[in-house]
Amino acid sequence: MFAEIITIGDELLIGQVVDTNSAWMGQELNKIGIEVLRIVSVRDREEEITEAIDSAIKRVNIVLVTGGLGPTKDDITKNTLCKYFHTELVFNEEVFENVKRVLAGKIPMNSLNKSQAMVPKGCTVINNPVGSAPVSWFEREGKVLVSMPGVPQEMTAVMTESILPKLQVRFQADVIMHQTFLVQHYPESVLAEKLESWETTLPKCIKLAYLPKLGIIRLRLTGRGKDKTELANVLHCEKAKLEEILGDDIFSEEDIPLEMIVGELLKKKKLTVSTAESCTGGSIAARLTSISGSSGYFNGGIVAYSNEVKIGLLYVSSDTLAQYGAVSEETVIEMVKGAMKTLKTDCAVATSGIAGPGGGTPEKPVGTVWIAAGYKNEIRTYKQETNRGRAMNIERAGNNALLMLRDLLK
Amino acid sequence: MFAEIITIGDELLIGQVVDTNSAWMGQELNKIGIEVLRIVSVRDREEEITEAIDSAIKRVNIVLVTGGLGPTKDDITKNTLCKYFHTELVFNEEVFENVKRVLAGKIPMNSLNKSQAMVPKGCTVINNPVGSAPVSWFEREGKVLVSMPGVPQEMTAVMTESILPKLQVRFQADVIMHQTFLVQHYPESVLAEKLESWETTLPKCIKLAYLPKLGIIRLRLTGRGKDKTELANVLHCEKAKLEEILGDDIFSEEDIPLEMIVGELLKKKKLTVSTAESCTGGSIAARLTSISGSSGYFNGGIVAYSNEVKIGLLYVSSDTLAQYGAVSEETVIEMVKGAMKTLKTDCAVATSGIAGPGGGTPEKPVGTVWIAAGYKNEIRTYKQETNRGRAMNIERAGNNALLMLRDLLK
Repeated sequence: MFAEIITIGDELLIGQVVDTNSAWMGQELNKIGIEVLRIVSVRDREEEITEAIDSAIKRVNIVLVTGGLGPTKDDITKNTLCKYFHTELVFNEEVFENVKRVLAGKIPMNSLNKSQAMVPKGCTVINNPVGSAPVSWFEREGKVLVSMPGVPQEMTAVMTESILPKLQVRFQADVIMHQTFLVQHYPESVLAEKLESWETTLPKCIKLAYLPKLGIIRLRLTGRGKDKTELANVLHCEKAKLEEILGDDIFSEEDIPLEMIVGELLKKKKLTVSTAESCTGGSIAARLTSISGSSGYFNGGIVAYSNEVKIGLLYVSSDTLAQYGAVSEETVIEMVKGAMKTLKTDCAVATSGIAGPGGGTPEKPVGTVWIAAGYKNEIRTYKQETNRGRAMNIERAGNNALLMLRDLLK
Repeated sequence: MFAEIITIGDELLIGQVVDTNSAWMGQELNKIGIEVLRIVSVRDREEEITEAIDSAIKRVNIVLVTGGLGPTKDDITKNTLCKYFHTELVFNEEVFENVKRVLAGKIPMNSLNKSQAMVPKGCTVINNPVGSAPVSWFEREGKVLVSMPGVPQEMTAVMTESILPKLQVRFQADVIMHQTFLVQHYPESVLAEKLESWETTLPKCIKLAYLPKLGIIRLRLTGRGKDKTELANVLHCEKAKLEEILGDDIFSEEDIPLEMIVGELLKKKKLTVSTAESCTGGSIAARLTSISGSSGYFNGGIVAYSNEVKIGLLYVSSDTLAQYGAVSEETVIEMVKGAMKTLKTDCAVATSGIAGPGGGTPEKPVGTVWIAAGYKNEIRTYKQETNRGRAMNIERAGNNALLMLRDLLK
């Protein structure tokens, strides 16, 4: 069973907004056996929206449209759908009640909000639990088109609560199964060579994909078939072969964030963690605390951007800073020890580097980051090199710090 | 002049990777007067890639294709393009030299890497300064198609260094001008109502768009015309009218991140800043330090997740915590004072809240965040309410903290 996603909005084409909706929808649709064939983003223009809808509806049975439902003049999706399906807008009492409920006195009701209660005649109107924009479900000749808001929070709520369950009932689909492996220690081409002889023997119903990202490669096996048990067996068998080839280089068999993997490990071992960050500027702490429940193992962190803070709060000696510099193995070792001491934790990570674009020297070029992970008296260090731009240098240092901590705790 | 972007890769459709390339490309193309009409993501399937390319090339003069150029089996873009343009792959010595240079002994050369030196005959090969995948520029009947890697770092380097300058030379385009305003204090519909009478009088060559995000609305005026001076005059005139209507609610006339606006202000006033974060977990520090040069005004930050850290490093009194709780106005006031004291800065921001999904109570439901901004002896506080999910509660608290600090320093 195939679907296409159409996202509407000038802001997507002009690049002021990154389309994160489609990726989320792709993931969720896959889980219920619906494969996304194509994602199309178009501008807020009637003829362009119409053309995109018309060609999608010819190719697939399910078309999911997001965006262009706001109360302002630049939002024209609702009127365009009416024209396309030869219908008209009618006032809907339930939607109006929902608009009133969502505004709930916080915002005064005005004519623009009222216009949100107008919905296309002849579609099924679906409740939007978190916003005022209406959701329309059209069925025509066995095909389904759903129009929903582009605000991610509203889209995910509507999809989860109504659209996904309705699609699952409405369409019987192929079984699709994924198995993702998170792999460290390899560049993509070396890993591909190592896996080549196994890859060529993969059965036709299984597909392999490589998704490299800043020191981590996600390997994804996708199986597709009619029989769930049979497919699960084939996948299980290939999974075993892969595990034999890669062994400990696979650090997770779930496609979850590294900070969650580390968090689970800390919880299991009943350990606490802290951070001492210079060049990563708090981003490792932010990653660790992005996980709900992290207060159970994360005590706190110190962003030690200035040397004064490194000395004052992390007990880095001024001699070390003078002799080796802030970006050095010696400094990150003292930082990681200081974090465990000041923040009273069992383990810690520390970073100090030149994120760039400025600040490099011939001895320590931009991209040089020293990283330390400590667990009680055991401390490991790593020197990250190669400049990939400020944001990626920071993200990669976070990956390496968390991978090092995980290895240390294993 | 119109372009379309085609991004290739199963990982995009299955939702394991968010397409950030297209937004970046859209922004950069707009700057040189090329408008993106459509963004299409398709799977690694020959017929789907071919169909997407064929219909794009019929609609527009410029088609930019990213992805599917890696050394592994699932990457089929190069072969598909050869078939489409009725040509074949030939060995290219320069590309091979580049592959060797990029690997530079770090990764052993293997047959998969060597295959990257095969390029379509009859296209212009463009240097990839940061990766091993080749870039191909095809010209057919006045239309241009460029195939480039999907790795963001490689794509941006190739676009900046070669593709954008070449496109600018190759195509004469309409003048496009944007003016973005960052606005605070309004829900979208209230702002729309306030602007309605002005909006209806906008000349035809000017378009207005609303882009709301977590407490901030970006308003974008886009002008399009033949004459640069004339268009600039019209835009300037509308800008003046908007400024008169909104006054101080416009906090920036450049579309730059809030952390950069705050950073510029700190630099101008020669002030230093620090952070004391509980529920935002280091993300405000990470935002401030994401800006190159932030070490000039950001001394450091404390992520005070546990009460012990709040007491020990930020001098929050245990009486305050016992009487009012960690999520209270009293606590964030002490936190912000503590940050300025411990980290020796002129100003600071502090947050404490219940990011969720767990931890809420009837008195302090999930989504409650107390925020403080301090500048010497002046401290302002704000209670953020309404739950939008953990990630958005955190991001919105960061927005509010930085907006409060900006207002305080103005």
